[in-house]
Amino acid sequence: MRIGVLTGGGDCPGLNAVIRAIVVGGTALHGDEFVGILDGWRGVIENNTVSLDSDQCRSILTKGGTILGSSRTNPFATDDGADRVQATMEALGLDALVAIGGDDTLGAAERLYQRGLPIVGVPKTIDNDLSGTEVTFGFDTAVQIATEAIDRLQTTAESHHRVIVCEVMGRNVGWIAVHAGIAGGAAEILIPEVPFSLDSVCERLRKRHGGDQFFSTVVVAEGAHPKDEETPGAFRSSQNSGNADQFGHVRLGGIGAYLAEEIERRTGYEARSTVLGHIQRGGSPTAFDRVLATRFGAAALAAVHDHDFGIMVALHAGAIVRIPLGDAVGKPKRVDPHLYEAVAALYLG
Amino acid sequence: MRIGVLTGGGDCPGLNAVIRAIVVGGTALHGDEFVGILDGWRGVIENNTVSLDSDQCRSILTKGGTILGSSRTNPFATDDGADRVQATMEALGLDALVAIGGDDTLGAAERLYQRGLPIVGVPKTIDNDLSGTEVTFGFDTAVQIATEAIDRLQTTAESHHRVIVCEVMGRNVGWIAVHAGIAGGAAEILIPEVPFSLDSVCERLRKRHGGDQFFSTVVVAEGAHPKDEETPGAFRSSQNSGNADQFGHVRLGGIGAYLAEEIERRTGYEARSTVLGHIQRGGSPTAFDRVLATRFGAAALAAVHDHDFGIMVALHAGAIVRIPLGDAVGKPKRVDPHLYEAVAALYLG
Amino acid sequence: MRIGVLTGGGDCPGLNAVIRAIVVGGTALHGDEFVGILDGWRGVIENNTVSLDSDQCRSILTKGGTILGSSRTNPFATDDGADRVQATMEALGLDALVAIGGDDTLGAAERLYQRGLPIVGVPKTIDNDLSGTEVTFGFDTAVQIATEAIDRLQTTAESHHRVIVCEVMGRNVGWIAVHAGIAGGAAEILIPEVPFSLDSVCERLRKRHGGDQFFSTVVVAEGAHPKDEETPGAFRSSQNSGNADQFGHVRLGGIGAYLAEEIERRTGYEARSTVLGHIQRGGSPTAFDRVLATRFGAAALAAVHDHDFGIMVALHAGAIVRIPLGDAVGKPKRVDPHLYEAVAALYLG
Amino acid sequence: MRIGVLTGGGDCPGLNAVIRAIVVGGTALHGDEFVGILDGWRGVIENNTVSLDSDQCRSILTKGGTILGSSRTNPFATDDGADRVQATMEALGLDALVAIGGDDTLGAAERLYQRGLPIVGVPKTIDNDLSGTEVTFGFDTAVQIATEAIDRLQTTAESHHRVIVCEVMGRNVGWIAVHAGIAGGAAEILIPEVPFSLDSVCERLRKRHGGDQFFSTVVVAEGAHPKDEETPGAFRSSQNSGNADQFGHVRLGGIGAYLAEEIERRTGYEARSTVLGHIQRGGSPTAFDRVLATRFGAAALAAVHDHDFGIMVALHAGAIVRIPLGDAVGKPKRVDPHLYEAVAALYLG
Repeated sequence: MRIGVLTGGGDCPGLNAVIRAIVVGGTALHGDEFVGILDGWRGVIENNTVSLDSDQCRSILTKGGTILGSSRTNPFATDDGADRVQATMEALGLDALVAIGGDDTLGAAERLYQRGLPIVGVPKTIDNDLSGTEVTFGFDTAVQIATEAIDRLQTTAESHHRVIVCEVMGRNVGWIAVHAGIAGGAAEILIPEVPFSLDSVCERLRKRHGGDQFFSTVVVAEGAHPKDEETPGAFRSSQNSGNADQFGHVRLGGIGAYLAEEIERRTGYEARSTVLGHIQRGGSPTAFDRVLATRFGAAALAAVHDHDFGIMVALHAGAIVRIPLGDAVGKPKRVDPHLYEAVAALYLG
Repeated sequence: MRIGVLTGGGDCPGLNAVIRAIVVGGTALHGDEFVGILDGWRGVIENNTVSLDSDQCRSILTKGGTILGSSRTNPFATDDGADRVQATMEALGLDALVAIGGDDTLGAAERLYQRGLPIVGVPKTIDNDLSGTEVTFGFDTAVQIATEAIDRLQTTAESHHRVIVCEVMGRNVGWIAVHAGIAGGAAEILIPEVPFSLDSVCERLRKRHGGDQFFSTVVVAEGAHPKDEETPGAFRSSQNSGNADQFGHVRLGGIGAYLAEEIERRTGYEARSTVLGHIQRGGSPTAFDRVLATRFGAAALAAVHDHDFGIMVALHAGAIVRIPLGDAVGKPKRVDPHLYEAVAALYLG
Repeated sequence: MRIGVLTGGGDCPGLNAVIRAIVVGGTALHGDEFVGILDGWRGVIENNTVSLDSDQCRSILTKGGTILGSSRTNPFATDDGADRVQATMEALGLDALVAIGGDDTLGAAERLYQRGLPIVGVPKTIDNDLSGTEVTFGFDTAVQIATEAIDRLQTTAESHHRVIVCEVMGRNVGWIAVHAGIAGGAAEILIPEVPFSLDSVCERLRKRHGGDQFFSTVVVAEGAHPKDEETPGAFRSSQNSGNADQFGHVRLGGIGAYLAEEIERRTGYEARSTVLGHIQRGGSPTAFDRVLATRFGAAALAAVHDHDFGIMVALHAGAIVRIPLGDAVGKPKRVDPHLYEAVAALYLG
Repeated sequence: MRIGVLTGGGDCPGLNAVIRAIVVGGTALHGDEFVGILDGWRGVIENNTVSLDSDQCRSILTKGGTILGSSRTNPFATDDGADRVQATMEALGLDALVAIGGDDTLGAAERLYQRGLPIVGVPKTIDNDLSGTEVTFGFDTAVQIATEAIDRLQTTAESHHRVIVCEVMGRNVGWIAVHAGIAGGAAEILIPEVPFSLDSVCERLRKRHGGDQFFSTVVVAEGAHPKDEETPGAFRSSQNSGNADQFGHVRLGGIGAYLAEEIERRTGYEARSTVLGHIQRGGSPTAFDRVLATRFGAAALAAVHDHDFGIMVALHAGAIVRIPLGDAVGKPKRVDPHLYEAVAALYLG
């Protein structure tokens, strides 16, 4: 078969491992031919491709990012985008297309499949917010990096008797914050799903520092926010004054900086903040992510050869399964309240 | 409640995280008291204990090994072992005992529970060979360490055009070998579940080196062995002549050394072997293992407070569940043949 | 002898290794007694101490931060500070005091020595800006952490065809930026010692991206700044509007954010910035720093027993030497222009 | 100029960083042309080369091993080897040759230079046994890897109350053992330079375990050996019976296995051994080694353009200097006795 492969959305450790598994596996098992589509859906729309063979893919397993480039272009953002995807697939003689991406990329994949295009999806989300799969590659690496950073921040917090706020990725969901917070032994974990009370946070810190602990680490997802009644416009307006969209990780009023400032002002404890930013999504994937990505790639290849299109491969109870794309997209997976509350009960106060 | 905690069998990254979750959580939620039992079942038999409180456990989350020590003592190995366990539990006034260990430790836990003792089990196996749970803590760390080692060996193999054999843990099952082998991009993965053919291994290496690859990494579980018909006593007798039991990782006739020697002799390619040994089971756990261990600890504590004894906590489809100890022990979990074969199809040759 | 030990200034990986070497070594070799002084000079002024013995110090070699705490208190900031130091030393019966710290801590040590106090200095500066020693512990760890972060950022930059600006520590000197920039293969390295021209930076990036490189990493020390003639007040005023002193790492107008914004505006290349912040100074020290810290500790102990006070131990040509404190302080060590220019010549454009 | 580059001897992290610095720097600064010589001196003798340009070298900074391959071939091992080197250099039109290697590679470089060939040397030795330079790249990486392994082994030793023997590289010198042993907090460090007394080792372990420490880590260089009077042939004969040369890291009678066996037999403490082997020389170099390798490469390039042949670049007191090849080779640098004794005094007993 002649198979196109594209990667869409934000980069994520493990993308290259998926590409490798598909290309090396397809070549060895079936003698497939592959076309590498550059920069996500943009490459299909603009027919911008590269050749892609086993030799190119052998050594990319350990490499972060994606050799195919990526973009956030959505074919349905313009009137003729979908037609152009179809035209390019025909021009390239593709029997199938494997789209590796998140909710946006796979949402487009689902709509293109409904138009009759032979597409298989592979889930990718560093934030772990895709329904239909227990977890995807990239998340484990991001959590590991954040945890190592928190380990480092703990010793600084301890030496200087400080509160250190560590802002991690997660605009809409708090998975990375919860996992890295548990793994790093954070005193507080604040997530978008549960608006926090600054009064309560400060009271718990006071109680903790009033005992025999003189330092604390607060892990906060970038999308976490205080309860409305507690912030009379202050946090939101400071957020708006920053360049949140374009230079989000260093904007004035980022939640991490805001928290450190407020905690210091209210409790008198010296407080600092650190924003982990892009280091969470780069670099060589963990072993866990390499294995999962490889298994996803092999499963996507199998689906293509079964002509089982319109599906997404997924992890369920240790096995790789196939679920309809339509069941997977459009339903962000939020943090399990039990996990969050069980953790909170164990660690806070 | 007054709760005893013990760790049995080989050490494993994450044991301390389980202890911490139980002790810190129980103290905060219920005001429980804890007794630390030293060196596994031996400590209960001999009534050898230490006090265990929240303060001691706060900073052990990131620490490898177990602060309680461990042993392979089985209370049923002597006639009065079980009676002495019961006597010690009464003498210590324990309302419950949490036993953290592998098949052997939990097998004893199950038998003690059948005698009426209030025991909850937490699964621990670095080899991932326990049925009833998708995975346990320690395995991810071991795979990560082995993968990092393989990454390093790849560059040496490449620079010197060598075959490098990397022997990893796994006496009875090949989980670590399969995962680390996939994650490290090994050319061959040999596991105990599937006796290998040296002829076939060498033929595949010849084919590979006859193309455009001039180096290979072979990952072999320590318990892998050649097919009987191919080894007229040679490998087995060399194994017996070594000190396999006591100094197993450096014995003459270890499977890694044997393979390197045979591959070099048969193919003429320069071959070397490395035995990873104990570094796979030591050191700070990965974030994945810290989270899983913490969740297991919290779940075991909940089971104790539900008076739900005779169970083991387990991971199933992302959730922590409880299963009867009797369903979990005595049934080693072997490598999924699909995983092994799908991998083989993708990578070998 | 009865010996006091204190750590002053910002925390730094390796402080605990120095403490351990002094205490374990002094106990074993000479039967010394030790007094741990809490939070730097503040602890001597306020007579706030803890006991310090071999048992406590055995396991701290690998631990980041300082078990003695730290502060930036300077005894000469108040009229009677030096008298109180002297009074405390007499009250504690100290025969000697080992002060581990940077320019500020050691400057006070020198002045106290001039008043007759038996003090030995150990150099500590994560920024590598202390004269008199080739390098000190902590710097290698900081460079390693920054380099690993840059490695990660490179893959993200490459996947998204971006310019990524990585802001590293270095308010007054660019040592970390230069070393991490070389080690990470940065396209640009900007340091406080050499005001940069934004026009030139953008021109070199344009040239680079006009060739066959479509991504770049710019490493900038937090204290780097543009040439005066190029910035008609814009950068400085934006700096002032932020909370530079208290929450510096996330302030509006941090040099990293400023650069990303300007580069994107001027070149049209998508640009992002990341501020590494405190993770550079926390966590377990590298092997290099552990060895250097241990050697410094052993050398400081030897100096104490030689009654060779008023000196600082230092690294010179692979050996540990002693130099007068007066020769070491007050002369910040700037980046070697040859190193910076040789690097620039090799990498830029 | 037209410049050849070769890498000889065992592989070492940082070789690629040297190659990159020479090629990228020479291209950018001088418009040099480069010829990559494959597999060390063998490639010059056999005229086996590849093209080498900036594009190929951009991304190899972080990669372990050497893209040029390596061998231990010595041109003076055959009668006409040197003539063939000269012939190849003329055939290739080389104005200069940069030889990156250890004592053997640089010894040949010196003799070829004496015959009039324009050669510059770059020191490479993972063992740190080259005179004339304080340190070379690769050593820091090896020590870091060994230290991380020892960190891991410590937790296992502690959990099981064991003595763990860790055998590290160092056939003739004990630099890695001493640095990793200090950094890892070893109880014993045994090196080739100082034959050890097994009686004394066991006595010190007994004393230590008789106190409040119930575990120990012994770091031993692979070339360390007991005093002659203590081993009536036993150790040597067991060494000879193994395949020391070809499969040295797993041979029966390796010093690590021997020590573990003897310590267990004599003291009754459970003892295990691990042989780190090739993982010490593979993988991505530390930041320290990348910087040093880059500086060496830049300095070698400068020497070539100064027509300053017959020299080796070296590190002295933080600066890169040039020394005559004749002063650098043939004089193995042994462990500084002060370092070893100061360490011993601090840690043993």
